[in-house]
Amino acid sequence: MKKKIHISIVGLGHIGGSLAASLKKNYGSKISIVGIDKNRSVLNKAKSSKLFDEVATLKKSQQVINSEIVFISSGIQSIPELFLQLGKINFKEKIIVTDVGSVKTEIFTAALKLLPETIDFVGAHPIAGTEKIGFDNLVEGLFKDKPVFISGTRASKKSINFISDLWKSLGANVFFVSPEKHDKIFALLSHMPHVLAFGLKSTTNKKLSVKEIVKYGGTSYKDYSRISKSSDDLWSEIFLSNRKNLISGIKDFKKFLDKLEKALKTSSKDNVKKHLKS
Amino acid sequence: MKKKIHISIVGLGHIGGSLAASLKKNYGSKISIVGIDKNRSVLNKAKSSKLFDEVATLKKSQQVINSEIVFISSGIQSIPELFLQLGKINFKEKIIVTDVGSVKTEIFTAALKLLPETIDFVGAHPIAGTEKIGFDNLVEGLFKDKPVFISGTRASKKSINFISDLWKSLGANVFFVSPEKHDKIFALLSHMPHVLAFGLKSTTNKKLSVKEIVKYGGTSYKDYSRISKSSDDLWSEIFLSNRKNLISGIKDFKKFLDKLEKALKTSSKDNVKKHLKS
Repeated sequence: MKKKIHISIVGLGHIGGSLAASLKKNYGSKISIVGIDKNRSVLNKAKSSKLFDEVATLKKSQQVINSEIVFISSGIQSIPELFLQLGKINFKEKIIVTDVGSVKTEIFTAALKLLPETIDFVGAHPIAGTEKIGFDNLVEGLFKDKPVFISGTRASKKSINFISDLWKSLGANVFFVSPEKHDKIFALLSHMPHVLAFGLKSTTNKKLSVKEIVKYGGTSYKDYSRISKSSDDLWSEIFLSNRKNLISGIKDFKKFLDKLEKALKTSSKDNVKKHLKS
Repeated sequence: MKKKIHISIVGLGHIGGSLAASLKKNYGSKISIVGIDKNRSVLNKAKSSKLFDEVATLKKSQQVINSEIVFISSGIQSIPELFLQLGKINFKEKIIVTDVGSVKTEIFTAALKLLPETIDFVGAHPIAGTEKIGFDNLVEGLFKDKPVFISGTRASKKSINFISDLWKSLGANVFFVSPEKHDKIFALLSHMPHVLAFGLKSTTNKKLSVKEIVKYGGTSYKDYSRISKSSDDLWSEIFLSNRKNLISGIKDFKKFLDKLEKALKTSSKDNVKKHLKS
């Protein structure tokens, strides 16, 4: 990538902010980044960070039209509306729209439906989030050694490679997977762990005081606490966007609990152990 | 504690081994420790460690009769039988029997029933276990800054203080709690987290290959994996010993999942979010 890259990042949260900082660190003056958000106080923080050539709302941005790439790193539910708005902008060049959403099928379906054919779409999902949220918590280098899944593309090979190379330049390991498979897998490996952590917090808080939880909680409970500190706002959107797979995961989990309950009632260690190993 | 202390540790696993190493480090020649286990290969390892003045099975031990304190750090299910065996030994002095079991009501009930009145019993539970097991994984200093709950005692004030001071001398923070309260609290803060981690592993393994799990698993899944590496043998016994409280926790958890499923079906973010926060 020899010529200057023009990028816009829409949604300056933990991932958007970390992406800006990581790209700026890597490319310096070889990149210009427009920071877009709908929240005024976030824009002020972004301005102070000096990472951006312009910070503005999408409607007021002067420079967004120069973009070659638009990264969408907003909440999942705002993405369809953003596709519509991006479709109305007269970009100077043919652009690539890409995203960082944790669920891929719904986003890809919306992209096919709502983005004009003149725009290349490359869906992506970096596995780099933690329980932290917000621009204040951005981490330069967040994507180093992290997996990034490219999932759901309607784009030229060149555009797909461009996005893939950009992630690789930040140290990420890039993999390709279909949106359907992505969502099935992440329902089990990411969304269910969050459901269980929110559930443990909710059921525990109904029975124990905060004081008791702090005094008696050991290592395992602390791991759950960390996960359940994740944003319920963000995760409600993720859960809903992947609800079909998640409901299937919840059903399987209830079966596991039913069978364990039965095994416990037999008072047989062999029965319990066999079920835990199943 | 000025005179030499004579201790026996029955059950030389992760906790028993760590206890021996930590006591030896602290007291040096001021302590003599008898290491008791039923497993020959564990006894050989214990012998090589040079931590013990004698290593033997309970029946063959010559020196156990000199004990002032017997620590039981075996699996929960073997404790009642050990109480019976200890009751038959002609100890030279009045001894204190104590334990490190993760569940307290059943153990205390068994102690009241099976230990002769001439023996003082002080139930205890150090919160220091990890997914590691076995003498090989002993950690000197494991109990530093860890909570130890003394729970279920039939003993003189002097004996209770002696056990409490011993834990404190290893850096632990000692708290007192009734066995019933202990078990109610740990069902939620320790046993349920383990149930959920075993459940996630079991339901995931049925749908995904090991290769997929390694490739796609992020931070949150890794926390669960660590917990679910815990011994299913050990945890089957813990779950069974606390089954009444655990079944109640499982029922509450199924209610949480039922309600989340319903909220997801309404497709309303507010409904989902409200339930996660509940």
